[in-house]
Amino acid sequence: MPVLVMKFGGTSVATLDRIKRAAKRVGVEVAKGYDVIVIVSAMSGETNKLVGFVGETSPLYDAREYDAVVSSGENVTAGLMALTLQEMDVPARSWQGWQVPVKTTSAHSSARIEEIPTDNIMAKFGEGMKVAVVAGFQGVSPEGRITTLGRGGSDTTAVAFAAAFGAERCDIYTDVDGVYTTDPRVTDKARKLDKIAFEEMLELASLGAKVLQTRSVELAMRYKVRLRVLSSFEEQSDEAGTLVCAEEEIMESNVVAGVAFSRDEAKMTLISVADRPGIAAAIFSPLAEAGVNVDMIVQNISEEGRTDMTFSCPVDQVARAEQAMEAAKAAGDINFHDLVADTNVAKVSIVGIGMRSHAGVAAKMFETLRDEGVNIKVITTSEIKVSVLIDRKYMELAVQSLHDAFGLETAA
Amino acid sequence: MPVLVMKFGGTSVATLDRIKRAAKRVGVEVAKGYDVIVIVSAMSGETNKLVGFVGETSPLYDAREYDAVVSSGENVTAGLMALTLQEMDVPARSWQGWQVPVKTTSAHSSARIEEIPTDNIMAKFGEGMKVAVVAGFQGVSPEGRITTLGRGGSDTTAVAFAAAFGAERCDIYTDVDGVYTTDPRVTDKARKLDKIAFEEMLELASLGAKVLQTRSVELAMRYKVRLRVLSSFEEQSDEAGTLVCAEEEIMESNVVAGVAFSRDEAKMTLISVADRPGIAAAIFSPLAEAGVNVDMIVQNISEEGRTDMTFSCPVDQVARAEQAMEAAKAAGDINFHDLVADTNVAKVSIVGIGMRSHAGVAAKMFETLRDEGVNIKVITTSEIKVSVLIDRKYMELAVQSLHDAFGLETAA
Repeated sequence: MPVLVMKFGGTSVATLDRIKRAAKRVGVEVAKGYDVIVIVSAMSGETNKLVGFVGETSPLYDAREYDAVVSSGENVTAGLMALTLQEMDVPARSWQGWQVPVKTTSAHSSARIEEIPTDNIMAKFGEGMKVAVVAGFQGVSPEGRITTLGRGGSDTTAVAFAAAFGAERCDIYTDVDGVYTTDPRVTDKARKLDKIAFEEMLELASLGAKVLQTRSVELAMRYKVRLRVLSSFEEQSDEAGTLVCAEEEIMESNVVAGVAFSRDEAKMTLISVADRPGIAAAIFSPLAEAGVNVDMIVQNISEEGRTDMTFSCPVDQVARAEQAMEAAKAAGDINFHDLVADTNVAKVSIVGIGMRSHAGVAAKMFETLRDEGVNIKVITTSEIKVSVLIDRKYMELAVQSLHDAFGLETAA
Repeated sequence: MPVLVMKFGGTSVATLDRIKRAAKRVGVEVAKGYDVIVIVSAMSGETNKLVGFVGETSPLYDAREYDAVVSSGENVTAGLMALTLQEMDVPARSWQGWQVPVKTTSAHSSARIEEIPTDNIMAKFGEGMKVAVVAGFQGVSPEGRITTLGRGGSDTTAVAFAAAFGAERCDIYTDVDGVYTTDPRVTDKARKLDKIAFEEMLELASLGAKVLQTRSVELAMRYKVRLRVLSSFEEQSDEAGTLVCAEEEIMESNVVAGVAFSRDEAKMTLISVADRPGIAAAIFSPLAEAGVNVDMIVQNISEEGRTDMTFSCPVDQVARAEQAMEAAKAAGDINFHDLVADTNVAKVSIVGIGMRSHAGVAAKMFETLRDEGVNIKVITTSEIKVSVLIDRKYMELAVQSLHDAFGLETAA
């Protein structure tokens, strides 16, 4: 029998009624002849409640105990889902992480899956079981302690199972009906994509389109797991949602797949830095040590041995960045006249694998923004992405005009 | 280091504050030099919530999934208790049933503990850990599925750990401050017992004094585990609560240790049963098959080949008993004129190991009841107990007068 992995997030299993609804979807796939592995999250709110308990008990908690506590919500959903399927006469049973076992590293609260043995579950499929319900987000360390994979980890569990079992597809049921060309709240011209390449999804995921956990997309790309994102709140056909797949599977696509944005950016500029070999390391090492996630970096042309260095980071890390820079200055490691923080910026990006073979995409982006009178503060590019930092007040305008300019309203 | 087992029930860990209070008690014992094993229940209300989820999902549930779901509350408390102890700088970690592992039978929802390996936890004690926090109520079957021990099972977990680790004592922290001569709600003369013998506790437990789960007392008696019942809501000394122990440890005691009672009894009489060899089996086998818990049985003297047979059972099983008797009559297995149910009765019992060496205890009980004008409907006796069935309206009066008659207000 072909294997299908189906993952249901917290809102999709928030109540017993929703679990029933999800179970019906599973029943549909079983009827088609699949052996199904269902990965479940905790009922929404449960994990937050448990995280709150831990935080209140112990501000500097032992991550091993944290994992033991916060993983329990998934166990509840797994058992309830198995019971619901049994009520529908679908042979099912639940597995907790340690029962499979989902073998992970010992990095508690952000463990990585190392191995998922398939013999146990495959044997049950062989005996006529149709659905294995597995508690997502959790695993077991080499020391036999319970681990968790970090927030959104159930997506990663799902993809890892799909890879281990050679599943035909991994369906991620969530509260949105797919991946859009941009956030529909910013423009009503946003269009749901039928397909998107792994690389594009990865850029969109890390750029703030919070549909899928970045790591799950990385994993899917590496193991070529076809990933489908779709809504658990609508009746679904085989064509529903968005398929995240290898670019070979996407026959025809727009040059730009989507416009992503991130509101909570800040731009910081070190004015008149003494320019010398190693200056970048002298600036960015202390920032990294201070836990500042530097994103874009621009260095101006050097004049008379001095230069300006600009970088962006999340707006809530500005204070930390300032502290680190002043400390480095005081220690004599760097020398600058002034540090200017602009906390009213946003990042807008266009993403598309088509850029690789199309020249002039970046130029078209810059022209579009110029025509709208939007000043660009910083630019970075990668093979399939162009990002710009602009004043935050222009963000919606920029997204809308780029969406229009690259014709995203209509499919290729 | 001597080992001490401490068990905290649901009300004792109902909130983070109460967990902290319990952890402080644990800290006191650690300071005395004990290696402590703490057994925790779920935060009160949690298990009921999960049981409700299961019942709503699936009226005829798979007990294996039920166990997987309802055991999760204990895991949360275990982790939180370990974190709380760590915050107090007491080296602690949590264990879930499968991690110890607590090996049980496969009888899901009412599993029995078969073995508790001590090497894992003892090794940690050897490395300087002072407290092992273990999720109560749960274990793992030979098939690797999660099992639970039935309601109140955490008491049994605690006693089993005390037996396995040769603990000096097993302290059961609960919401009452010990075992009383009778229920203080019935007479304010009720007195807390400092010590009570296992056999007496067993009779009291099964008679409705709901302080300890019956099975935990049986286990304690078999393995000679000294069991102390005490309140988690009061400051406690070493002498607090009630010690349940071997009778050799009890130097001096009243002939009668306590007066127990049970309100929810029914008396059923089969009128004019055809008396023949095997008639008792013909009556009580179908009752057992119907799941009726028959308690007291009285057979009248036979006259002209016919007799009356009286038995008692819980009042909510009367309909089931009637059904079983009518079916047996219809099948020709038994023959009786009428079946009379009296659902307004109560059982009152006096319990005491002193009865073994004192004659006239039963007679004194009957005289006391006669003097109060209480009519006795059925009598049964064992070596350390006399029980009577009386009209329910006399129950409080009977308990009070027996408590007075046997001088239970003052210790021996």
